[in-house]
Amino acid sequence: MRMYDIIHKKRDGESLSKQEIAYVVKGFTEGTIPDYQMSALAMAIYFRGMSPEETAELTLSMAQSGDQIDLSEIAGNKVDKHSTGGVGDTTTLVLLPLVASVGVPVAKLSGRGLGHTGGTIDKLEAIPGFSIELSESQFVDHVNRYGCALIGQTGTIAPADKKLYALRDVTATVDSIPLIASSIMSKKIASGADSIVLDVKTGDGAFMKTLEGSFDLAKAMVDIGTNIGRNTIGVISSMDQPLGLAIGNALEVKEAIDTLRLEGPADLTELCLLLGSYMLVATGHAADAAAAKQMLKDSLESGKALETFRRFLEAQGGNPAVVDDPSLLPQAKRHVPVVLDRSGYVASIHAEEVGTCAMLLGAGRETKESEIDLAVGIVLHKKIGDQVAAGEPIATLHVSDERKLSEVIARLQAAYVLTDHAQQAPALVYGVVSRSGVERFC
Amino acid sequence: MRMYDIIHKKRDGESLSKQEIAYVVKGFTEGTIPDYQMSALAMAIYFRGMSPEETAELTLSMAQSGDQIDLSEIAGNKVDKHSTGGVGDTTTLVLLPLVASVGVPVAKLSGRGLGHTGGTIDKLEAIPGFSIELSESQFVDHVNRYGCALIGQTGTIAPADKKLYALRDVTATVDSIPLIASSIMSKKIASGADSIVLDVKTGDGAFMKTLEGSFDLAKAMVDIGTNIGRNTIGVISSMDQPLGLAIGNALEVKEAIDTLRLEGPADLTELCLLLGSYMLVATGHAADAAAAKQMLKDSLESGKALETFRRFLEAQGGNPAVVDDPSLLPQAKRHVPVVLDRSGYVASIHAEEVGTCAMLLGAGRETKESEIDLAVGIVLHKKIGDQVAAGEPIATLHVSDERKLSEVIARLQAAYVLTDHAQQAPALVYGVVSRSGVERFC
Repeated sequence: MRMYDIIHKKRDGESLSKQEIAYVVKGFTEGTIPDYQMSALAMAIYFRGMSPEETAELTLSMAQSGDQIDLSEIAGNKVDKHSTGGVGDTTTLVLLPLVASVGVPVAKLSGRGLGHTGGTIDKLEAIPGFSIELSESQFVDHVNRYGCALIGQTGTIAPADKKLYALRDVTATVDSIPLIASSIMSKKIASGADSIVLDVKTGDGAFMKTLEGSFDLAKAMVDIGTNIGRNTIGVISSMDQPLGLAIGNALEVKEAIDTLRLEGPADLTELCLLLGSYMLVATGHAADAAAAKQMLKDSLESGKALETFRRFLEAQGGNPAVVDDPSLLPQAKRHVPVVLDRSGYVASIHAEEVGTCAMLLGAGRETKESEIDLAVGIVLHKKIGDQVAAGEPIATLHVSDERKLSEVIARLQAAYVLTDHAQQAPALVYGVVSRSGVERFC
Repeated sequence: MRMYDIIHKKRDGESLSKQEIAYVVKGFTEGTIPDYQMSALAMAIYFRGMSPEETAELTLSMAQSGDQIDLSEIAGNKVDKHSTGGVGDTTTLVLLPLVASVGVPVAKLSGRGLGHTGGTIDKLEAIPGFSIELSESQFVDHVNRYGCALIGQTGTIAPADKKLYALRDVTATVDSIPLIASSIMSKKIASGADSIVLDVKTGDGAFMKTLEGSFDLAKAMVDIGTNIGRNTIGVISSMDQPLGLAIGNALEVKEAIDTLRLEGPADLTELCLLLGSYMLVATGHAADAAAAKQMLKDSLESGKALETFRRFLEAQGGNPAVVDDPSLLPQAKRHVPVVLDRSGYVASIHAEEVGTCAMLLGAGRETKESEIDLAVGIVLHKKIGDQVAAGEPIATLHVSDERKLSEVIARLQAAYVLTDHAQQAPALVYGVVSRSGVERFC
């Protein structure tokens, strides 16, 4: 087998065999296939695409290129949830205890934030004492005992994907649905979950800017899951504005607690119930989404979900008292209201800009090496459709380091677009893709 | 400027600016742009193409990446002829003295053969004493004095092209018209000719297998010439069978001498007259192709062309007596006739296979390091349309090393396809592309 022939074949629009894909992934990971051939192949895939079978083979080969987490000692059908990344996305913090509270084990491998997107590990580390340092056996034990546990992704999960992504990132070959889908899914599959629910964000603040692209990506990932026997469901949700109101690590923990108390923002609560219900459907814990949603609501109302969160925090060294007293979380030095000098209705909020503003305040990392401040961030007061009077605060900044404050205020003001006409709140979820097909909600 | 943005732009089908192309060529040649980005760009160009302006800029940047031959001290409009490579292509040996004999200076940089294709330098070195070792000033002096001179290409002509071609060769990005056209033209332009006539071979034995691809390539090269002010004409000629009858270095020298004596094969003679006449037209030495052809015929008939050849050989150290006594050329040990066990009409001759047979006899190089035998080769007796009786020789092998003889006989026999029906000889030339447009002959 020669890499030249494989590039040539894909260039001419033919499908690659299972053996050819395995050869490419192995050779590239081991370094016998040079970067210049791999980038040519990636560009040929960009133009020619890959069939669902090819995409599944690529995913599996990349998943098998490094460590594969063995979750077989956890009883039951393990479910993982993955978000393609957004601004103020607090769903994992809520879903972890919520889903576990109704008896579905959640063994979560998570990452840190970069750029305008936050990371679940950073958020949880805002809780005094919380640690992600668990051995694999402790991890399994915690899930069996408390229903859920969370650790960091190790360096040896899907190293082929890591190497390929770094190459795609500098050769303009990131924007390819089969390559994006296989990249995400290879890590999920190596992480050992039996069922996967994907929150595919769409819109201005998301990786996927168009609705059709988001449906295509969800379909490609569901096809991978179907092809390799992991029940996968993709939910396409809006990232046309930040989700919920809080952006920043401690601020989002507080928002998650509020949500578990049924006192959180409506959009975040609704999306958590929807994603959670598909997690129950995917694992067979509920017959349909409606029944699943009722189970989750009951758990919230009875306080069982909140209690599960408390026990999960305590098990990983965190102070469970934050659940009843969020003032124990890190607090920023100053609260700075942001106002507009105009009035009207909020027509759009540039989510990526809001994420960047939080990063500039210190809540996120500009580069992998940046230090972050867990206390700082932004709490929005106005979202799309809300009426705003000139001089009325649209948001409050939680600030410790004031060096970039004036830049942040100006950028946040510019991220809000107002109109004179009343606006409807935008759709929260556009549809669901599962192995039984595509369901569009609007 | 960033290479990433340039790849992205081309990937999305946009045109690259002059500055961007210059940045790419410079960075790639100097090594600041890595191979993996260049191969991704090459693949994007494969799919998206390049406009005539982009192709011209790429050509010029590559031509300027190394030494540029200065022919300004040669009086008159200098013309170069380039063939895209075929089997038994003896045209340069004939055209060099023929065109020079009517007053058009020919300053020729040539190469050696590789694989099934021969090289002009190898052929001329079959003449005892002939040397391509001239300094640049001697080269200029010879052209001024004798009308023509030939030297080898130096390593520093268009190094960007050399590096890019090597990368394209291993990343399945060779088959791109703008990249092929700019590769050929960059070397011609760095070699200093004012006018360029391209013999674009088409068919089974050529690099370009399809007629439309050959016209497209000719048009791309003429467009480059027009864009950068070098009058360029492309002639599309058949390589559906070997040109002339001889394949092998000394054998082709003898065939060239025969042709200059008006005793050569009809197809070779006709193609030389046609290519030569466009060389006269391109340099403004004749008003049209018909007038030019008459000038060349007159030179052949008067013996002036042959006399120019004699003086050219002598000037570069070669023994001019070979012109009158070709037996002074290296002779193979044995002549082996090849016959078929069937009869019929020749329907096709697999030119590339015939070239490979000559290579296997030792006339050509399997790798750049191979030693060649200047005496050996093949003389065909039958071409497309000829009638063949069973047992009648179709060719004579000129053999020194007999190790691969039986393989060569079997492959040559298989290269001939016979039919029961009378066949017309195929077209020799399909058309001409110049700055005034495309002219199709059939």
